[in-house]
Formats: sequence, structure tokens, C-alpha cells
Amino acid sequence: MFQSFDTPSSPDQGPPRLARLRDKMRDLSVDACIVPRADRFQGEYVAAHDDRLAWLTGFTGSAGFCVVTQSKAAVFIDGRYKVQVRAQVAPDFTPVDWPMTTHIDWLGDELGASGTVGFDPWLHTMDEIARLTDGLPQLTFQPIDNPVDAIWDDQPAPPAEPIMAHPLDFAGEPHGEKRARLARDIQAKGAAAALITLPDSVAWLLNIRGADIPRNPIAHAFALLRADGSAVLLTDPEKCTEVRDHLGPQVEIRPEAELRQVLEATGGPLMIDPQTTPHAVTLMLEELGITSRPSADPCRLPKACKNKAELQGMRDAHVRDAVAMCRFLAWYDGADKTGLSEIDLVTQLEGYRRDTNMLREISFDTIAGAGPNGALPHYRVTTDSNRQLTDGALIVLDSGGQYPDGTTDITRTLVVGQAGDAEKRAFTLVLKGMIAISRARFPRGVAGSHLDALARYPLWLNGLDYDHGTGHGVGAYLCVHEGPQRLARGGDVPLMPGMILSNEPGYYREGAFGIRIENLIVVEPASPLPGGDARDMLAFETLTWVPIDRNLIDTSLLTPEERDWIDSYHATCRDKIGHLLPSECEVWFGAATEKL
Amino acid sequence: MFQSFDTPSSPDQGPPRLARLRDKMRDLSVDACIVPRADRFQGEYVAAHDDRLAWLTGFTGSAGFCVVTQSKAAVFIDGRYKVQVRAQVAPDFTPVDWPMTTHIDWLGDELGASGTVGFDPWLHTMDEIARLTDGLPQLTFQPIDNPVDAIWDDQPAPPAEPIMAHPLDFAGEPHGEKRARLARDIQAKGAAAALITLPDSVAWLLNIRGADIPRNPIAHAFALLRADGSAVLLTDPEKCTEVRDHLGPQVEIRPEAELRQVLEATGGPLMIDPQTTPHAVTLMLEELGITSRPSADPCRLPKACKNKAELQGMRDAHVRDAVAMCRFLAWYDGADKTGLSEIDLVTQLEGYRRDTNMLREISFDTIAGAGPNGALPHYRVTTDSNRQLTDGALIVLDSGGQYPDGTTDITRTLVVGQAGDAEKRAFTLVLKGMIAISRARFPRGVAGSHLDALARYPLWLNGLDYDHGTGHGVGAYLCVHEGPQRLARGGDVPLMPGMILSNEPGYYREGAFGIRIENLIVVEPASPLPGGDARDMLAFETLTWVPIDRNLIDTSLLTPEERDWIDSYHATCRDKIGHLLPSECEVWFGAATEKL
Repeated sequence: MFQSFDTPSSPDQGPPRLARLRDKMRDLSVDACIVPRADRFQGEYVAAHDDRLAWLTGFTGSAGFCVVTQSKAAVFIDGRYKVQVRAQVAPDFTPVDWPMTTHIDWLGDELGASGTVGFDPWLHTMDEIARLTDGLPQLTFQPIDNPVDAIWDDQPAPPAEPIMAHPLDFAGEPHGEKRARLARDIQAKGAAAALITLPDSVAWLLNIRGADIPRNPIAHAFALLRADGSAVLLTDPEKCTEVRDHLGPQVEIRPEAELRQVLEATGGPLMIDPQTTPHAVTLMLEELGITSRPSADPCRLPKACKNKAELQGMRDAHVRDAVAMCRFLAWYDGADKTGLSEIDLVTQLEGYRRDTNMLREISFDTIAGAGPNGALPHYRVTTDSNRQLTDGALIVLDSGGQYPDGTTDITRTLVVGQAGDAEKRAFTLVLKGMIAISRARFPRGVAGSHLDALARYPLWLNGLDYDHGTGHGVGAYLCVHEGPQRLARGGDVPLMPGMILSNEPGYYREGAFGIRIENLIVVEPASPLPGGDARDMLAFETLTWVPIDRNLIDTSLLTPEERDWIDSYHATCRDKIGHLLPSECEVWFGAATEKL
Repeated sequence: MFQSFDTPSSPDQGPPRLARLRDKMRDLSVDACIVPRADRFQGEYVAAHDDRLAWLTGFTGSAGFCVVTQSKAAVFIDGRYKVQVRAQVAPDFTPVDWPMTTHIDWLGDELGASGTVGFDPWLHTMDEIARLTDGLPQLTFQPIDNPVDAIWDDQPAPPAEPIMAHPLDFAGEPHGEKRARLARDIQAKGAAAALITLPDSVAWLLNIRGADIPRNPIAHAFALLRADGSAVLLTDPEKCTEVRDHLGPQVEIRPEAELRQVLEATGGPLMIDPQTTPHAVTLMLEELGITSRPSADPCRLPKACKNKAELQGMRDAHVRDAVAMCRFLAWYDGADKTGLSEIDLVTQLEGYRRDTNMLREISFDTIAGAGPNGALPHYRVTTDSNRQLTDGALIVLDSGGQYPDGTTDITRTLVVGQAGDAEKRAFTLVLKGMIAISRARFPRGVAGSHLDALARYPLWLNGLDYDHGTGHGVGAYLCVHEGPQRLARGGDVPLMPGMILSNEPGYYREGAFGIRIENLIVVEPASPLPGGDARDMLAFETLTWVPIDRNLIDTSLLTPEERDWIDSYHATCRDKIGHLLPSECEVWFGAATEKL
């Protein structure tokens, strides 16, 4: 079982640790210090070794940070975690709605005209520190050794899992070709090398996978790609035994601690992404007198635009995952539901995924939120929070698997017995938005920020909305949250063929119920339409083929086109999944995929 | 008659002037020079004195610029002017699609590793010059006296129209209060003053109007607003006879040529908007040793968020304008259409507007594009281009009036006889998009860029689109194109109550026909809905009340909600306009506002 249901932290742990941190701050003569969720790789998951924010505050969300002064400790969280943070932190910590209140505003108010703010320069990006110093010119920002590590007596060891090769059948392009392709751009820009600090970019570039953090199959590693196409993989050489041959003579392996020497030997100019590169690298480059050339991580866009092999792998993984999901839904259909709990659902579903014999990891902790728990968009069930299913409750079930050929992410909303009218109405409005995205055609140049409102419009017309983006990018056997494309207000990267996105509008009524419906979709060139202009338009191919509960749909709210979409979606589910299901699923699957 | 139908330029005029400009460039030792459409006020219209781009190239569009070298002359134009430019410039000029190709790329290609580019520092903003010098570090950018003025023998004199007070009944807030309100922010930012270089901002701030350029009731003027609320109006004092009392002792009047002395006396820091302030001011501040504090024009947002008096004025102006439009449409309905030309339509419509006895100006040259001319989104009819109406043709009629209480802008698509099926289908798809915007409700924080796709979605689904934004901001007896809000991909300013926008999706089939439907709308707080959450949402109030041609609607393509919207829109037209129409319009108006 990958998922565990332990209560990961307790509010009680925070206050004594906060007191020790404040002692440490006094020793260091800093008036404030910042404790981010991030490690030096700026990813969504951190190893136990790096989980400083949770250790200090009790807050276990995947984004946020704490700013501590001698009198206050603010935990900055976004809309997703408003409710969760209140349950997880002691009253000594003050939750702050971010970005409505920024840490710049907060530090300005708290410290006033002067003061020193300590920060670990490995855990903040160059851009973050630039924004802080620009926004608060009256304060001193002081790089310090991590003050939490200094007081964390039983801090777990850093991860050291072996790195494995990602087969060419799934990667679709040898890493030598990728390196040569990207090196041409480094050369064209007159740079000596590009430093790549995002581990999933390193994994994509060198066709490797790791297991240093939960859920994402990546290794803690940086890489330096030189203008001649050669590279240095900066990670613990002990982890690389299995991939020395795969990497070959063009890729040197050096410990991460030797980054300074590697940079010095390579010289400049060095391409770095200020949005992701640790501020510590700025300090290093200043010492070495190497000029930096700010530019986006060169792997981000090619990694996002999946090639044929990656798309085929994703399709295959989604068919396999749909079989697991359908087996689960058929089981659920026949189960005595009020005898079940959220944990039972998670356990059962993970069991079906493991039955595929291909599951390497789950993509993220399954969200199984029943009744009011479903109204927490990022709820994670623990033995403490576990709810028994009750009649009429809705359940948001958001889950996915990491398979060697692809990553899945799917949400279906389940019901216990019959849903109420308000629930069906909201479900149908969410569904209309999800269909609007699925059916979209749009010209090149359109970004996710331009499409996001299509998913919300049916809810907006009824005075409803949801406090999260409509979709995120998804990796191919990589991170389930992958940039740069997003279907969200801030998603300003134009959509390009091969980009994979989730399409997951929702609706959440606090204290009552939640709804979310999610498929993964791929951007592809649109086929021309009769009567259409000869415009070069794009459209979405759907990857996810699992029935959407017909009993939750209020068909009176659908247009004929929306009904057709649902019927055609279910017909395709039959074609793609029907013959792969065991016989005990037949009756349920037949009914679930019937025409509306 | 405000509008004229002269052919404003001829392609023949360009080549000899280009030759003289190249001689001048040799004298000045510059390898390239930039001739922008803009004057030093960066507005959409320029006085005859400033119409250098048209004089040099023949191109009369409202945006664009020419870059000249000894061997090439590129006219950069956006999608709106692709077709027009080809008809207006001689083959010596090369049209370039901007921004697909930028002048940075073009200059880099043409001049290569070195060269000097001359520019008039009054006609380019600080940001423009910063982008050029950043993008082309290998080139020298040389401020020069305007080289076109130097060769333009019969250049018209600069405008000198009297400035008038804008009555408080329409402005809604005395200029002393506006100055005090904005001065508080200048004080809070620790600046000495803000320089305001947009004439419509100056007009809004001081409640004045002018007539220095066509179509926009503004004066050529800068203003300096000091932290104590006092101001300097920088313009020809001769123009100010009528407004000395209105301006009062707190507003000094100085010639524009004394800007340097005024800045020197005021000192710094000086707030300037680098997006609109001439680069010449940068040079001036450098000489004076005054520090500048880049920040958006302080008038932009308060000017955009109309107060109660301004909104009431806009509503009144729109009712008045709707009467003129309805009289026109009733006349058109009864006319022998194939005996009419585009110019006849423009003349007749302006006549009905003048009949209101309140028309100060037209908001812009009326666009009356019949048949293939309608496919040019910004077509302006001349005696050369004037088309007779032919059976089955569509006509895009986009027009507006400047009234003392407000500015209007409306587009209706007319048909000669019966429209074809393709035209009706496209019209209905455009209408669906226009209705989607009209009906929208959305949370605070949403910007025009997020809503733009709602207007395009019905077209996109059918492989169609249009190459312009969905809407622009509109001033209150000010510029018909006013920032910062826009309904367009790049419109990233969150919508706020009181902002006025046009809602004008369209469709253009080159060489065949054009369609556009446009109402003005105002952002307002949305009334709560039963079953909706207690969210603070916004919605649109419609300002424009003129029937939309029911004969062009393919009702089979409408949802029940869209039909209801049309019927309810026409019912409101009856309520608001019906009793104001002369009896000869009754039959047409009754039929035009019937239920679908």
C-alpha cells in the first residue's frame, strides 16, 4: 500500500519548536525568518528530511510558508488550504490568506522601518529574493544556514534512492539527441552552459527516473548542460550505479556539493532560470565572477510538448488505469455503502491499481472526501478525519497512478444512494464546464488563462465558482503537476500540440459537499470543419475513459450538444475499455455507459 | 457634416517623400529611422500637423509605424490593417505583420552587427525606447529632431482650439477633489509630483474638454500634479481663456515649452508612466538630476471607473443615440436599398445624430462596409472605395456620437434584402458570443483576457474566429477607446464596477462579407441569485438599446436562454426608446422588437 492514513502532524508540536526557533533567531540576530515548504528543487513534494514547514507548524499542505518574528508567526496559504490550515496549526500561528496579503506587506507592517530577515538561500529562488529585496528596500535580507535544521534533533536523513533509466520506448528520444537539440539553443544564445535545477527537467533531459521523494518518480539532482551537448549530473554518485552505462561518456556524474567547482570549470555566461534556481547560485556566481543569462529552464517547453512515444505511453497508461477505476466503480456500485469509510475507498482503489502489476507509485495521495470533507479541494483522509459514508452524501474521489509508460490523474464524484436536487444541479453545472473545455477548438496563441472561464461560465451564471485552477499540466511518468501550461487565470503560456492538461472544474459548498469531475486532455491540431475557415486551430484529445455517473446529471440543464458529448464519451469508453473488464463488471459498465 | 469622404492619401505620394527622407537620413548620419503614427500624446488620433506616417507612406490606419533604411521601408501594421495597407502604400513600402515580426527583429536583420537608428524622442515612450535598446544592444539609438518635419514643406500648423470646462453635472466630482484624492497617493509614495502626459487623463483630472484633434474631445496638453494637490496645466495659454475661472488659483497655466523649467522648480522624485511618457522626458530628467518613480498614470484607473454622474450621462447619451439609430434603421427599412451607397448610409446616419441638437462630434469615422468592404474590420469609406448596395449584401455599420454627457459606440449588421444561409449562420454565431458576454457574471479579479474566449467560443466550435479584440474601454465624453480595461487576450486589468466596455465580436470572410454586433456595457456589482453562494460577483449592465436584426438570426442555433436574452433585450428597447420615436418609425420598431 503506497498511501498511509496516519495523522501526519499535530497542532501541539508547533509551539515548543517555535520557541526554539525564536531562540535560534536571537542567536543569529535576525528579526524575522522565513520557513518555506520548498526544498532546493522547488517541487511539490519534499523528502521527510526537507519537510521543515510541517515539522515547525503542523501544516502539511503542498504549498505555503511561515514567516516568524519574535511576536508573531504567520502561515501563508492559498485558497485551497484555508480550511485545512485552521485544523492543523496551534493558535500561536496565524493563517494568512496569500496572495491577498503578501509576505512583503506583512513583513513591512511587522518590521516597519528597519530589520533583518534571515533566509536559507538554497530554499528560495532568485526571483523570490529579488521581489523581497525590491519590495522591502528598508529591510536587510540575510542568507543564513537553515535555522530549522539547526534545532531539528531527529531530522530524517536525506533520500538516497537508486536512479533508473527511462526506456527509449517510452521516452521516444535518446538523451543524446535531447542534449544536442537543447545545446544548439545554448550555443545560439552565446552561453557556455545552462544550469537545470528542476529534478523533473533533469529526469526528462537524461531519460532517468528516481524515487527520492514520494509520488514523483524523480531523483534529487541538478544538471549542467554545456553548449557542446555534454552534461554533468550533479547528484550522489552512489545513486547512479544502475545508469552509468545509460548515461554514457558524455554525461559526467559529480556530487551536488561540487556544483561550485563544476561552474568554475565551465565558466560563463551561464543560462539560469531565475524563477526556479536557488538564490544560493546567485551568490556562487557572484563569487566566481560568472555572468548569468536569465532564461526559462530550456527543458520546460520540450518536456511539456510530449512526443509520439510519450503520448502513446500516456494513452496506454490511461486505458490500464481506466480498467482499475471501472473495477473500483463496479465494486462500489454493488457494495453496502453505508458500511464503508473514506479509507475503505482509498484502499480498495489502490488495490485495483496494484492488480495491474504495473503500478510504480500513486500519482498523489488519493483524495476521497465524503460529504463535508469533499468541500476541501485537497483533502487527504487520515485515521482521525476518516468519515463513514452516509446516505445521500457525495464523494469526491481524485486519484492517479504512476506507470512506467505514463502518469494518470482522474476525479469522479460518487454518490451514496440518491443525490439531492441541489447536488445534481451543481454536478451538472460543473459537468457543463468540463464539457465546454473538452469540446473547445481555439487558434494558436491562446493560453490556458483564456480558456479557464469556459469551464466556469455555467457556474458563474448561477452565482457559483470554485477556488482553484481548472487544470494543470501533467508529466509522462513524471510529476502529475507539471508546467508551464495551465488552465487557470495565471496560465499565460500559449497551448501547443502535445501539451497534456487536466480538465477539472469543481464546486465546493463548505460544510456540506464537494463536486469535481476530471479528465486528462492533450492539445492536438484540430481537424478542419466543413464551413470553417482554413485556420490553423487546436483542439483537445481526451485521455481518460471512465464513465461519469449518469445518476448525478440533471439532463434538463444540458444542451443537445452537451448530451451528445456525454453519449459519445460513454460510447468511446465502451470501445476502449469494455473488452478489458472482467465479467463481474459487465452489468454495471453496460448501464453506466448507456445513452442519456 | 463631421465625416468626409475624401481619399485621404494616395500611394503615389510616398516614393518622392521617401527619397527626401533618405537624403535627410544621410545628412544626419543615421542608417535607419523610425516614423511612428503617434504624436507626443500617444493617442489614437493625431492632428493634421502630426500625421507624419500618412504623409510619408499613404497609410492612414490608426496604429502602425514605418522603419526606413536606405534600401527598405517597412510599414508595420497589426491584423486589422493587413488588407488596407496593401491598397494605400506604393510598392516601395513593404507591409510587415506586427507583432509577429517586431521592429526589433527587422532592424536586427537589416542592420546586422552595428548601425545608428534615429528617432524623435517626443514620439516614443520610455518603454518603447527601453525595449529597443535592450533588444538591440549592438545598435546605437540616436535622438534626433523630427526628420519628417524637416522635409515637410507645407506641414499644417499645430492645433490651437479653445479649452472648455466639462460641467460638474456630467463630471460628478470637482477637479479640486480629484486632485486632492490623487495627491494623497503621490504623497504616500513619497514623490513630489506626477507628470500626466495623456490628454484624456488631463481632461478627466481637470474637468476640461478640447478640440485639438478629430473625434476625441481633448486638448493637446500635459499636466503636473503636485503632492499638495496643486497642478500645472502645460498647454498654449491662448487656448485657456474660457477656463481660467474654472481652473482656479490651484491650477497654474504654462506653455508646454516650459515643461523643463516646471520640472526643475518642482524637483523629485517624479512619478511617470513609462508606458506613455515620451522618452524626451527621460532625457530632461537625466539632465536635471531628478529621480523618476515609474508608476501607472494615476488618472487611468479612477477615470476608467465611472462615477454615478458619468454613468447617468452615458445612459442618457445612449438613449438619445438609440433614437437616432432607430430613426436611421426605420428609414433604411423603407428605402430602395439598391439605389444607395455606403456614403449615403453614413450621411443619413450622421444627419439623424445631428438632429438630436446635442452632437458635439462623431466618436470616430463611421464604418459602413458593404459586401466585401465589410470584411475590413476598420474600413472607412471614401469616394474611391464607395460601394453601391447590392442584393443579399451584408453591411457592417459601426458608429458613435460624442455628446456633452457621454460617448456612444454601436455596431449593427444590416442586410440588403434576404441574407444567405452562410451569412445567417455566421451572424448567429457572432450573436451567441455577444450574448455570452452580456449575460456573464464573474468574480472580482477576473480580467478582460479571461472573458474574451466566451465571445469567441461559438465561432471557434465552427472553425471560425475574428482578428481583433472583443471589446475596448470607452470614455465618458472622452476617447471612445480608453484604457486600461479591455476584453481581449492581452487585457490583464481586473474588471471593476463602473468600467465601460464595448462588446463587439465579429466575423470577416475576406472578399465576401463582414459581421459585427456591438453594444456598450458597464461593469456593475451583480445582484445575488437564489441558490447562489454569497460571493461578491460582478455583471454587466447594457447601455445600448437598438434592435438587432431578427431576420439575420438562425433561431435553430440559439439555446432557450439566448432566445430569452434577445426577447428581453428587445422588450427593454421598447420600454426605453419606444415613446421617444417619431410616428413614422412605429411600424418598423414594433416589428423589429417582436419576440423571436
